[in-house]
Amino acid sequence: MTGPRFTPLVASLPATVPFVGPETQERARGRPFAARLGANESVFGPSPLAVEAMARAAAEVWKYGDPEMFELRAALAARHGVGAQHVAVGEGIDGLLGLLVRLLVAPGDAVVTSDGAYPTFNFHVAGFGGVLHKVPYAGDREDPAALVARAAETGAKLVYLANPDNPMGSWHDGATVARAVAALPEGCLMVLDEAYVEFAPEGTAPALDPDDPRVIRLRTFSKAQGMAGLRVGYGIGAPGLIAAFDKVRNHFGVGRVAQAGALAALADRAHLARVVDAVAQARARIVAIGAANGLVALPSATNFVTLDCGGDGARARRVLAALVARDIFVRMPFVAPHDRCIRISAGLPSDLDRLDEALPAALDEALNEARSLAQR
Amino acid sequence: MTGPRFTPLVASLPATVPFVGPETQERARGRPFAARLGANESVFGPSPLAVEAMARAAAEVWKYGDPEMFELRAALAARHGVGAQHVAVGEGIDGLLGLLVRLLVAPGDAVVTSDGAYPTFNFHVAGFGGVLHKVPYAGDREDPAALVARAAETGAKLVYLANPDNPMGSWHDGATVARAVAALPEGCLMVLDEAYVEFAPEGTAPALDPDDPRVIRLRTFSKAQGMAGLRVGYGIGAPGLIAAFDKVRNHFGVGRVAQAGALAALADRAHLARVVDAVAQARARIVAIGAANGLVALPSATNFVTLDCGGDGARARRVLAALVARDIFVRMPFVAPHDRCIRISAGLPSDLDRLDEALPAALDEALNEARSLAQR
Repeated sequence: MTGPRFTPLVASLPATVPFVGPETQERARGRPFAARLGANESVFGPSPLAVEAMARAAAEVWKYGDPEMFELRAALAARHGVGAQHVAVGEGIDGLLGLLVRLLVAPGDAVVTSDGAYPTFNFHVAGFGGVLHKVPYAGDREDPAALVARAAETGAKLVYLANPDNPMGSWHDGATVARAVAALPEGCLMVLDEAYVEFAPEGTAPALDPDDPRVIRLRTFSKAQGMAGLRVGYGIGAPGLIAAFDKVRNHFGVGRVAQAGALAALADRAHLARVVDAVAQARARIVAIGAANGLVALPSATNFVTLDCGGDGARARRVLAALVARDIFVRMPFVAPHDRCIRISAGLPSDLDRLDEALPAALDEALNEARSLAQR
Repeated sequence: MTGPRFTPLVASLPATVPFVGPETQERARGRPFAARLGANESVFGPSPLAVEAMARAAAEVWKYGDPEMFELRAALAARHGVGAQHVAVGEGIDGLLGLLVRLLVAPGDAVVTSDGAYPTFNFHVAGFGGVLHKVPYAGDREDPAALVARAAETGAKLVYLANPDNPMGSWHDGATVARAVAALPEGCLMVLDEAYVEFAPEGTAPALDPDDPRVIRLRTFSKAQGMAGLRVGYGIGAPGLIAAFDKVRNHFGVGRVAQAGALAALADRAHLARVVDAVAQARARIVAIGAANGLVALPSATNFVTLDCGGDGARARRVLAALVARDIFVRMPFVAPHDRCIRISAGLPSDLDRLDEALPAALDEALNEARSLAQR
């Protein structure tokens, strides 16, 4: 009795997953985290109006959601000054990235990203057999010109650029991004991941023609809107590309509660402004906490701050482990040289009090551990 | 400036979608339906405990959901007497079907289903380039032996069987399904879609060894649990297959509200019993309404009743259109000879009052229209 016959591609894929959730760590540790500062969630929460809308929708959840997501797409289109035909909504940016890769990438097709950029994008590229070409960051920023050059060299169908960037928190101004789009080789689509753009300085999001077939911009309700657990993201792009999602998407995948929550959140601009303000304050506090402990903060246009631990990956991993041992959930960049840093999401004042309290001891422990390893 | 380069497979796909939602029809009609009896939703609603759990989770939706869905999977495993390693959870059965097809079906691979069975499965098979072989129903029931025989003939990797069946409402006993599984050719996986099984007679769900690599059973919170708009389905299968979903799924796709709602619904067995009872009453009423109007009801093990309109597809389509014109949302089977029927979901007594009121006039109108066409 043999098992199912997986495709050769699937059989070749590793069983790895892009991220281990904090809940998994909590189960392994046997106790919960005291501060949840690792996943760039918005601890400031969703709009109270969105919470109400979700609760109302929960009572009506026996109905399938509208598979066209008409109201939500109309509202998003109005907000961005585009037509509904320019807007695709999906199960988070993660879901949209998976669909987008599926639309374009057949086994062997070239795709370009930055070395150290969003691993879930890489997961999807591998999942459809694409060949990923990685361009180094220029310092702690993605390098748009190098990405475009590599796309031209490799004949890439897709190039990924996050602006602002995760995990470094860095950014380029919109004009730089627009220049990169203009320089793209024929037939190459740029995925412009703007998950964090609400936290960035004015002018970070480029003005783009929504009918430009060379770029799709991705936005999410997971970050500034505080609804990571709801799973709503959207893409703005040319109608031909947007319509193609209908060929492959899970049509009822963004359900009734998700649509209602997103629609209400979109309307509550005052809440968004409060969150952006609270995030700015939290960033300043993290910078100060880092400075008080001799850690340099990288400039950030996001809802997190990347702190340089002043050494190599091993050192940062020790600091991270020592913070986790003190019940503070944080993460860090995966690849060198960025893995000299740890990444701390904006938290409530009480979360940052805990960080403030734990960091000196965590740094001491990391240092002592390094010394004892050196003496062996 | 050329557009993105879709894969040849995607370029070849039609832009059709499996279902048009009632909201789309309402927008086209310019007025809402008075009775929503077309999508086999559970108008009896979700468990009040699940509604509370969703509302609580909404306030915490700033957190990503647990990507391992540990608690929900553990609860499902306990309910079914299997291990968590036997349970995959996804964005509805639709989402799981998409992933499952992706795991197994490369372009040109054979897949078997019944002609007239669930179109969303066919959508996914086409979406991954599979070659679909369709077996006729035996009367108004799927034909498990013929499905298995065709799978052997075509070397199919996957064979789809819904039990009970949608759109006919028919079913086989579990022993028949178990025999079909036992007769599967080597390396063929049966997708046993049990979305409606809670409404079926005892013994409809076969006892299956969860380690049997030849079958995956799919269940949903969309039907008896009344949470179609939440998007939670699950599969029970052998650990090797279940683990493979991790290679391709959207890991955070079943979010925090969805997990909390499903977990609470699972615990509320009293609500489930009430719904099953209310559905049985509604079915009896639909049978009676049909009989009073000369329409024969097919036996049903689901939350809907399929009424034979006593003619061909054209006649049933006229009856359907006349009901829709009277603000009653119903659907009908897509292919002959089943398209002689219309399909009416279990409704509240008030919904069925409207049906009772509208059906005689709808039948008259359909008949008159047919006569006037014949006289032209």
